[in-house]
Amino acid sequence: MGSLSNIDQSNNETRGKVITCKAAVVWAPKEPLVIEEVNVDPPQKMEVRIKILYTSICHTDLGAWKGENESQRAFPRILGHEAAGIVESVGEGVLDIKEGDHVIPIFNGECGDCGYCKSEKTNLCAKFRVNPMKSVMVVDGKTRFSTRDGQPIYHFLNTSTFSEFTVLDSACVVKIDPKASLKKMSLLSCGISTGVGAAWNTANVQSGSTVAIFGLGALGLAVASGARARGASRIIGIDINKDKFIKGQTMGMTHFINPKDLKRPVHEEIRELTDGGVDYSFECAGNLDVLREAFLSTHDGWGMTIILGIHPTPRMMPLHPMEFFDGRRITGTVFGDFKGKTQLPQFAEECMGGVVNLDEFITHELPFSKINEAFQLLIEGKSLRCVLEL
Amino acid sequence: MGSLSNIDQSNNETRGKVITCKAAVVWAPKEPLVIEEVNVDPPQKMEVRIKILYTSICHTDLGAWKGENESQRAFPRILGHEAAGIVESVGEGVLDIKEGDHVIPIFNGECGDCGYCKSEKTNLCAKFRVNPMKSVMVVDGKTRFSTRDGQPIYHFLNTSTFSEFTVLDSACVVKIDPKASLKKMSLLSCGISTGVGAAWNTANVQSGSTVAIFGLGALGLAVASGARARGASRIIGIDINKDKFIKGQTMGMTHFINPKDLKRPVHEEIRELTDGGVDYSFECAGNLDVLREAFLSTHDGWGMTIILGIHPTPRMMPLHPMEFFDGRRITGTVFGDFKGKTQLPQFAEECMGGVVNLDEFITHELPFSKINEAFQLLIEGKSLRCVLEL
Repeated sequence: MGSLSNIDQSNNETRGKVITCKAAVVWAPKEPLVIEEVNVDPPQKMEVRIKILYTSICHTDLGAWKGENESQRAFPRILGHEAAGIVESVGEGVLDIKEGDHVIPIFNGECGDCGYCKSEKTNLCAKFRVNPMKSVMVVDGKTRFSTRDGQPIYHFLNTSTFSEFTVLDSACVVKIDPKASLKKMSLLSCGISTGVGAAWNTANVQSGSTVAIFGLGALGLAVASGARARGASRIIGIDINKDKFIKGQTMGMTHFINPKDLKRPVHEEIRELTDGGVDYSFECAGNLDVLREAFLSTHDGWGMTIILGIHPTPRMMPLHPMEFFDGRRITGTVFGDFKGKTQLPQFAEECMGGVVNLDEFITHELPFSKINEAFQLLIEGKSLRCVLEL
Repeated sequence: MGSLSNIDQSNNETRGKVITCKAAVVWAPKEPLVIEEVNVDPPQKMEVRIKILYTSICHTDLGAWKGENESQRAFPRILGHEAAGIVESVGEGVLDIKEGDHVIPIFNGECGDCGYCKSEKTNLCAKFRVNPMKSVMVVDGKTRFSTRDGQPIYHFLNTSTFSEFTVLDSACVVKIDPKASLKKMSLLSCGISTGVGAAWNTANVQSGSTVAIFGLGALGLAVASGARARGASRIIGIDINKDKFIKGQTMGMTHFINPKDLKRPVHEEIRELTDGGVDYSFECAGNLDVLREAFLSTHDGWGMTIILGIHPTPRMMPLHPMEFFDGRRITGTVFGDFKGKTQLPQFAEECMGGVVNLDEFITHELPFSKINEAFQLLIEGKSLRCVLEL
């Protein structure tokens, strides 16, 4: 019998029961993650329990691990939000997802019923939008994870994928084509969708548009892939690490600027290169000085800057209100303005068709047990995505 | 014979010659304007000389008169940019405007040929966009005004309407229906178009939209008129001067908030009134703390704040970059995003049809000789528009 039957059989044994499995638990800020056995409760009303097969690490996990933001701290906790897996069981009321479905978790959910979900202008759901403060389930304010001796373990970003099994609200689970590679599809949980979506949905890059991308991590490279797919005529990458330019070229970048090589501000260089500035700039560095350069690099009259970087600084925007009269605009993007449940299956199909080359983003692969090594690779800027196999 | 014939006759006498006429000249910051005789040169290539019949004063004139911005100072100078008049003569190459045409000057011109004018995304012309630094004509870098003894007098905002005759680039002259009241149409030169356009073009207020307007001078009231014309369901006016509320009601405002009467921030009050915030907020106060309140008063997910106020402060935007991830947007607007020459004639028709009640904005009328009195009325907040007849 095939693997699906195995899952079915397994489900009969586990459905409605507590599952004991391995998870990577963070006990305190910056302390190494501990792989240990945890209990995972059955899914409650409108919840789904999934078996995670692949997960990777993104900078938001790093931030939470470091405990950068005091008010977001909750330990012990299971981090992780980029993953793919198979549904083990579903709770009461879940109709759109069933046992055995191939799924990817999304940290920015879509209930489909609230005023936000019904609006075409936003992908922020009233109940299940991204919220780094949230550490428990919505339905009862409790955790589904606990240690073997009963201590609650907190959730993270609606997902908590650093575990063999996790429980999510069904609003945060997207069903995808079972023919797709789950390893590759795991990347659509966060970074790739955010970057490509920022180019497609937030900016609406068109054929012939000019684009500048500040910061060439996975997010910036995903923006480049999205801009290339739309036919942007110039894609300028900016980074102080010139090693990033090699990967950038494979993602469609046409020009590179290392600010360290310049004797003038980057925006002056870009304006000269592009006859007045790019149509769209993307700030993926999480640095306010870079943000200002990104803003000034766009063409007056119609330039748009999209903020993707996380800015933990208390400093305010380094932009003067009068600068907005030059017709430059700035906006943030969450999950690339994709409505996850509605739009991601189609995006996954496009990726399967090769619109975005997901393989290029997987620079490392490790077993789940080496998760601390994977953290280190990201911290040192050596990996784009290190996929962990569970 | 009618008045048009008189003009024709007059033109034969003046065409191609220097005209000596009365103008209100500013000799130094904050000094009373001096009505004196000045020389007005004939229009050069692509220029138009017009006889001003009505003009009024706007806050931008006040700012330049005070010399608020050091780098914008140029004296002696003829201020004024809100007006209406009749074409006296045209320079070489002007084809779309002829002697006797009824026209309104626009400070934010439209050449029709540059990349900006050809773009649908902006109304900023490469050559003739609003520019408070500019004090001479584009074609030769000279002034068309001089004192009787030959000293150059500087231009202001492409217009300089505090003069019986003025010279403008034809890109800054909009022809309107000769049946329209020039007195009323003079208001379309700046404030009314900016406010109504901000609601129509920049925000694109729709039927049922909710709107908050911070600062109820002529600009804020024009926004209200525009929002009402589009069928906004709630129009909330915010001002610390409760006398403004009376006029606000005639302009379609449905609610008023005096921040002095509240024990909590205005945005909390507005969010409660509107189930989470308004769709659009307009900042017409030129104050950064007000700007922040306006931003926070909009609904997360889709709220948009439009900056109309002039902010002479060196302070930066009091917004944190992470606040942009809540889906609130902010943008500036110049001349309400109207392309002056292309779109204003149609807007003028709509005003003649009563879409905006221009009469309500004219609170005072004075002869041109009392221009200093009109300045005082505006400074003291007693007038919306005091129209001066020349």
